[in-house]
Amino acid sequence: MTRARWTAETTPLPPHALAWLRDRVGLGEPLPEVPVEAPDSALSEDAFTALEAVCPVSVDAGDRLARAGGLSYLDLLRHRGHGEPAVPDGVVRPGSPDQVVEILKVCVEHDVAVVPFGGGTSVVGGVEALRGDKSAVVALDLGGLSELVSVDPVSRVAVLQAGVTGPEAERMLGEHGFTLGHVPQSFERATIGGFAATRSAGQASSGYGRFEDVVESVRVATPVGEWVAGAAPASAAGPDLKQLVLGSEGLFGVITEVSVRVRPRPRDPRYEGFVVDGWEAGADLVRALAQDGALADVTRLSDVDETEVALALAGSRAGVVKKYLRFRGVKNPCLVILGWECRSRATTMRALAGRKVVRLGGAMGKSWLHGRFNGPRQRDALIDAGVCVETLETATHWSRVSELREAVKTALRAELGDPIVMCHISHAYETGASLYFTVLVPRDLDDPVRQWERAKVAASDAISRLGTITHHHAVGRDHRPWLAGEIGPIGTDVLRAVKDRLDPAGILNPGKLI
Amino acid sequence: MTRARWTAETTPLPPHALAWLRDRVGLGEPLPEVPVEAPDSALSEDAFTALEAVCPVSVDAGDRLARAGGLSYLDLLRHRGHGEPAVPDGVVRPGSPDQVVEILKVCVEHDVAVVPFGGGTSVVGGVEALRGDKSAVVALDLGGLSELVSVDPVSRVAVLQAGVTGPEAERMLGEHGFTLGHVPQSFERATIGGFAATRSAGQASSGYGRFEDVVESVRVATPVGEWVAGAAPASAAGPDLKQLVLGSEGLFGVITEVSVRVRPRPRDPRYEGFVVDGWEAGADLVRALAQDGALADVTRLSDVDETEVALALAGSRAGVVKKYLRFRGVKNPCLVILGWECRSRATTMRALAGRKVVRLGGAMGKSWLHGRFNGPRQRDALIDAGVCVETLETATHWSRVSELREAVKTALRAELGDPIVMCHISHAYETGASLYFTVLVPRDLDDPVRQWERAKVAASDAISRLGTITHHHAVGRDHRPWLAGEIGPIGTDVLRAVKDRLDPAGILNPGKLI
Repeated sequence: MTRARWTAETTPLPPHALAWLRDRVGLGEPLPEVPVEAPDSALSEDAFTALEAVCPVSVDAGDRLARAGGLSYLDLLRHRGHGEPAVPDGVVRPGSPDQVVEILKVCVEHDVAVVPFGGGTSVVGGVEALRGDKSAVVALDLGGLSELVSVDPVSRVAVLQAGVTGPEAERMLGEHGFTLGHVPQSFERATIGGFAATRSAGQASSGYGRFEDVVESVRVATPVGEWVAGAAPASAAGPDLKQLVLGSEGLFGVITEVSVRVRPRPRDPRYEGFVVDGWEAGADLVRALAQDGALADVTRLSDVDETEVALALAGSRAGVVKKYLRFRGVKNPCLVILGWECRSRATTMRALAGRKVVRLGGAMGKSWLHGRFNGPRQRDALIDAGVCVETLETATHWSRVSELREAVKTALRAELGDPIVMCHISHAYETGASLYFTVLVPRDLDDPVRQWERAKVAASDAISRLGTITHHHAVGRDHRPWLAGEIGPIGTDVLRAVKDRLDPAGILNPGKLI
Repeated sequence: MTRARWTAETTPLPPHALAWLRDRVGLGEPLPEVPVEAPDSALSEDAFTALEAVCPVSVDAGDRLARAGGLSYLDLLRHRGHGEPAVPDGVVRPGSPDQVVEILKVCVEHDVAVVPFGGGTSVVGGVEALRGDKSAVVALDLGGLSELVSVDPVSRVAVLQAGVTGPEAERMLGEHGFTLGHVPQSFERATIGGFAATRSAGQASSGYGRFEDVVESVRVATPVGEWVAGAAPASAAGPDLKQLVLGSEGLFGVITEVSVRVRPRPRDPRYEGFVVDGWEAGADLVRALAQDGALADVTRLSDVDETEVALALAGSRAGVVKKYLRFRGVKNPCLVILGWECRSRATTMRALAGRKVVRLGGAMGKSWLHGRFNGPRQRDALIDAGVCVETLETATHWSRVSELREAVKTALRAELGDPIVMCHISHAYETGASLYFTVLVPRDLDDPVRQWERAKVAASDAISRLGTITHHHAVGRDHRPWLAGEIGPIGTDVLRAVKDRLDPAGILNPGKLI
């Protein structure tokens, strides 16, 4: 049995967290695990031989199961034998951009679908090994494209290969004194190519920008040949074609190299905790920071529910903090984490002056920093404890932020009974913000898959009425029904026109996006 | 005879400027003007009747000549009878987005090409009334789409119709306390739709961003129906399709409305002049400001030649300034204009401390502000004085900025003898900057058109070796040969695929972009 795992070891839940969960959420029964077997590979001997002439290929069941889907809650259930994981027929491991071009040619010739696979951290079914109408499907593992190709220290531009992971990018750029500053929750495993293909947003996006903001150009292998989109720092030379590749989720081609803006490593990063009284006050504060140019690099506002959970999980320190907040007259504490890496702390602090904000200091900031990757790491432990746990996210304009938050909570309550629904803003813009929801509810043992599917549809309907179906998780298979509504029939047609031109045989990542 | 005119009256050249030109450039002979006649309209009676059923249509020669091309040097020569202006067969004036959709249907039915026409300020042949393989061509004058549709003061988002001019946008938004902050040299006549269709960049782009940075969504009339691209402040819902419309120069559809980010009107804008010693020192300074987050909203560095001209045209004040610069030991004065509207002057000034920068104060800043639109206004006067005058622009990474500047100057000298070639940086990014060239040379009386055509080819070849063919003038007809090289055959194919899907009959702006 192979389980997708976040790291070599998942992070266990501490006893006080388990106790709190039992008390507040209620724990379900541990889910019985059913062994998952890989079906026989459908890759023909001809196809295998042709692929192997280009680079290593594996049809080993373990290799294939390890690339059978991503890390959504439903993926994790599938890896426990509940639901059908889509298992690729082979794993192909190119070692260079040229080999990727060659592999695509072979796959067209042998009627094999191709799913580009980086860190495998998609939570929207983006790396499901769907075969479409092809005879077989392979996972194209980009781990072999792991180099820092070049650094231009004057222009502060670096070229990274697609398979470089977040930590590797930081290590290699760090040797030159630079950082990419892109740290999403998937950072530990996700790759440069994945960031680009999905329009990723890091936790310090207010400072460093979204991933698409730092990309100067992308090198893409397509079935019709190689393409470099993007060139100058800014241009009016027609539509920005790079923006068509970013977010294309492997449908138009396989991103093999990305040229990115880098910055000097921060010398004195600082993270602090604050509390405001109530969600509306918090949203107003973040809006003011965004519109006055005073955002910290990390700017994160939790609602009352998420703050309660954060304090509950903080253990012994929580009591002192709660007492202090009562003393300061805060009725509905909402945690604000601010972190400065390249932006000016003084500018933010000036903007906070005169507002009703309680400073909790650096310990709370460090605590956030320390636990910033725990969410994904603890999901196996939560599932083992009988909890249905998943996240949802969107973005909308400021005038709709609170309405959207309410609508999603209402939709989830209608489907799930009495779930905990936590919400935070973690990416703020002048005109609006992201909203990120975490849902916890005892798992329905009879049909755990259907339990979440129903909730997801209800929440996504609410989201798409008032905002975008995804701010940074991407579309994959799971958001496809809502994308069509968001971009309209002409938008879908345009994507299909580009797809037809670049991938006429339709081998690339079938069943995703459109 | 109808001449395209910048404003109701062009700005004449003051006597000291004429004297300086005679001395430094040499003045040519005034160009004999040849009357320009409009050919008979090729619009069929059927087509005319069908168009007129939707909205007003004119086949008046004056109306048509006034929309025969834009404002490039070659356009201005054509309006004097040198070269063949492409005169539209009619001028169509829709009053609403719906009427634009209707007009496109009629044009498909009657085999009529459509050139969207806003302010008519293109300097790259973007509004040439080319007929392509159609039976006639009309200018679609968007002047009737002149409304501020909505303002969301909380989200700071406004929706403007495509025909709203720069000054009208500022007036209407100003009533709500907002500004768009988008002031390119074409500001006085250019329109919101034109800004979007060409990826315009305003003089304060370092503060407000390029036009594509402020667009939230675009409403587009296409021959296959209406489309709204873009929605949320940020999204990972597939490729950013809005970025495909921005810069599409009317080939995919006609932009009818644009949703834009707005900002509060600046309370205390301030513009100041500085001087650095030599181009390299100046470029280093601007790069440091850009990379340290210390740019002013307006950040502009002139090279020695442009500085010399600016001082020569400044008249009586110039002597004092020159004397002061000699006293301060500046050997190769390069003028720097910094203007603060929304960004922090203190941040910029801190970054300047310790650098060898001579402050000239607010008078020089005001002088720039006062004359910021003079370039285009004075071109008729320069042409009347026998001067060939044109501009070129590009952007590249910092490590190539000086090499590119030299390459363009060398190319122009090889073709034009001893021209004055002035250069400035007016848009700076973390990874690079724009370069803007102004060329002045006595006009070749025998073949003034060929004189500039040769120079343009040589300069554009040099530009495209080291940067983008255009940073903010767009592609139009004139940059088309170089765009293909910049985006490659696959990029061209992608644009054509989108074009074929949205405009299968090929009526939209033939002969431009691809």
